[in-house]
Amino acid sequence: MNVKNLQKGLKPSIIRELFEYSNTLKQKIGANNVYDFSIGNPYAPVPQTIKEEIGKIALSDKNHGYTSTCGDQESRQAIATFLNTTYGSIFKDSNIFLTCGAASALAISFNALLNENDEVILFVPFFPEYPTILSNLNVKIVLVNPDPKTMEPDLNDLKNKITSKTKLVIIDTPNNPSGVLYKEGTIKTISSILEEKQNEYGTSIYLLSDEPYRELIYSKNCYPFITNFYRNSIIAYSFSKVLSMAGDRIGYIAINPEADEAENFMYACVGASRTLGYVCAPTIFQKLIPHILGITSDFSIYKEGREILLDNLQNIGYQIICGEGAFYLLLKALEDDANKFSERAKTFNLIVVPTDPFGLKGYVRLSYALPIQTIKNSIKAFKDLYNSYGDKKWEISKICAF
Amino acid sequence: MNVKNLQKGLKPSIIRELFEYSNTLKQKIGANNVYDFSIGNPYAPVPQTIKEEIGKIALSDKNHGYTSTCGDQESRQAIATFLNTTYGSIFKDSNIFLTCGAASALAISFNALLNENDEVILFVPFFPEYPTILSNLNVKIVLVNPDPKTMEPDLNDLKNKITSKTKLVIIDTPNNPSGVLYKEGTIKTISSILEEKQNEYGTSIYLLSDEPYRELIYSKNCYPFITNFYRNSIIAYSFSKVLSMAGDRIGYIAINPEADEAENFMYACVGASRTLGYVCAPTIFQKLIPHILGITSDFSIYKEGREILLDNLQNIGYQIICGEGAFYLLLKALEDDANKFSERAKTFNLIVVPTDPFGLKGYVRLSYALPIQTIKNSIKAFKDLYNSYGDKKWEISKICAF
Repeated sequence: MNVKNLQKGLKPSIIRELFEYSNTLKQKIGANNVYDFSIGNPYAPVPQTIKEEIGKIALSDKNHGYTSTCGDQESRQAIATFLNTTYGSIFKDSNIFLTCGAASALAISFNALLNENDEVILFVPFFPEYPTILSNLNVKIVLVNPDPKTMEPDLNDLKNKITSKTKLVIIDTPNNPSGVLYKEGTIKTISSILEEKQNEYGTSIYLLSDEPYRELIYSKNCYPFITNFYRNSIIAYSFSKVLSMAGDRIGYIAINPEADEAENFMYACVGASRTLGYVCAPTIFQKLIPHILGITSDFSIYKEGREILLDNLQNIGYQIICGEGAFYLLLKALEDDANKFSERAKTFNLIVVPTDPFGLKGYVRLSYALPIQTIKNSIKAFKDLYNSYGDKKWEISKICAF
Repeated sequence: MNVKNLQKGLKPSIIRELFEYSNTLKQKIGANNVYDFSIGNPYAPVPQTIKEEIGKIALSDKNHGYTSTCGDQESRQAIATFLNTTYGSIFKDSNIFLTCGAASALAISFNALLNENDEVILFVPFFPEYPTILSNLNVKIVLVNPDPKTMEPDLNDLKNKITSKTKLVIIDTPNNPSGVLYKEGTIKTISSILEEKQNEYGTSIYLLSDEPYRELIYSKNCYPFITNFYRNSIIAYSFSKVLSMAGDRIGYIAINPEADEAENFMYACVGASRTLGYVCAPTIFQKLIPHILGITSDFSIYKEGREILLDNLQNIGYQIICGEGAFYLLLKALEDDANKFSERAKTFNLIVVPTDPFGLKGYVRLSYALPIQTIKNSIKAFKDLYNSYGDKKWEISKICAF
């Protein structure tokens, strides 16, 4: 079968491959003896009131019918009001488009915005589904390097990579895979670079902020909300991670009402959504939105696991980049090839993801959305893995991103 | 904004336009005085046990997590078993791919199967979302004419339209907009034509059967299940219409296990699903599947409305094509241009959809998924509309498709 999508399906992502290896290993040696840091599956319980509310919503026939393509008007208004109250934005309901989670928000936005040969800038490390979703659109992907100390983007590199064809820049903060929350100053500088380049080229450059981890922040720092800094900005949001509802497939697109052609963008989203076969986001979860805005799962379990890992891995001697949010951290591999490092980790029943698909060589990603006991039990394995390298490991300096 | 999807969003479908006109009119003169036959929104109640089951499923945290891209294994197995028992097919779980309804099943299948410049055959009248979803894929759409008496496809025309580039033929039975259920003989002849052409050209021609109305049949005739007749066959199914759950976004793709490259097709569906941003179908509704297979809403309300319309409209003098299934029928417009006929119908508070977007000129579609009282009240308006044409109407012969 000679189709463009076959290879993407045939070649499972390294994350899924490791997930399946882990499941097989768990069956063999028992789940408690496998330390699987591979999957970003939210682990905190879904709030009980939300689970019960779904049951109530499901009882009405009208909550099983179609909505308009862009979603239920009341729920869109509720989101606009919530964002305006929380972040001082000025959204109206007509700036909000309900989607089947953030991946769908990305696919619809990309298909609404991008023409062939447009250039799209990704900051390394990036979420691997960006290039997958972009792959059908015949656009050129341009990578911007990170500052290796902070894993924030190298802003000089950004400046150099923007051309007259640049249509879209994507940020993902708190970041998957690093957990790094971009500083307000970083967002400001990105915004002024884009403004300057828009003026220089007479173009519109859109900044899309992918925000599934927006409320998952462990520090006291505020979230630098993108529409407060940049006019041509778009948000892709999902309730998946903050409420452990990844399977419920509900999220939204929000466009800054002051963006160039904000209204046309929404029409283009309707067109894109139809060509992608969405019809509308699941109605029951659309109707749930007014009941869940501002609520999150209890993240204390992630915070505790994160602290245990940080303390212990640095004590062992590992070099770590760990941001203030999400539930991921980066561990520097103890050899050049992070794939080989991940392979060796398996022999200690440690499942860690090489960040090569995220555009970053030499690191593995650890997802700490795991039971505390699993994390505690894993420490010895991390120590044994470290020691197995003897003197052959890289010179380690203890760096943490904050 | 110069994007390929803007026009599709800017130009709302005629169905949606009429729906909005109807809502405005309802506010003005009262809902009971508007006879809105425009929208194919299922009207029969969702079975109470199903609504309650959703609430139960929602109570478990694990039913809010991701599934694999192709869906929950148990639910896929349940579908395979159900189809095999009901239709004598030989599906395995690995031949089933769960989707966000039939539109998503179509988008994923098209993206999994089609390369640029492939030819896709649609039978007139066709569901207007087919060309919309195909529009992103740079394929050539080839139309096959209907037999104007039966609205089944003209099979000689089909034979003439197949070329060495034909990759996909789509059928939709019971049909939207005609309600026509293709006879078993028709399916057999289509199959033998495709077999013959495959042999002639040494190609694989896939036959995709879009089946959201499969269980919505008012006669005693059996459904000619496609895998029993043709090897390279694919099914797109949705629970939307038979259970009045259109907003819940759950359906599936099933590929005949004996099709060429059946296994590769499933891998390609995984790749296509990722590029379209689906991740997985909503998990709660995936988990609901074993509880709803073989159950339908009570269709007696559609049956009664259908009979009232058939009797009365034919008595008035209208020419009707009304198949054995779905909840649609075709009314021949009383002037050349069905758009003008639909406009004039509005002045009698009758909302009917011209079938031009379905590829068929000179007809309007009536959806009879409506309260019986609305249908009864509409008869006088249909009579007044008929009489308003005086002697200028077309020569009418009473034809019904069965």
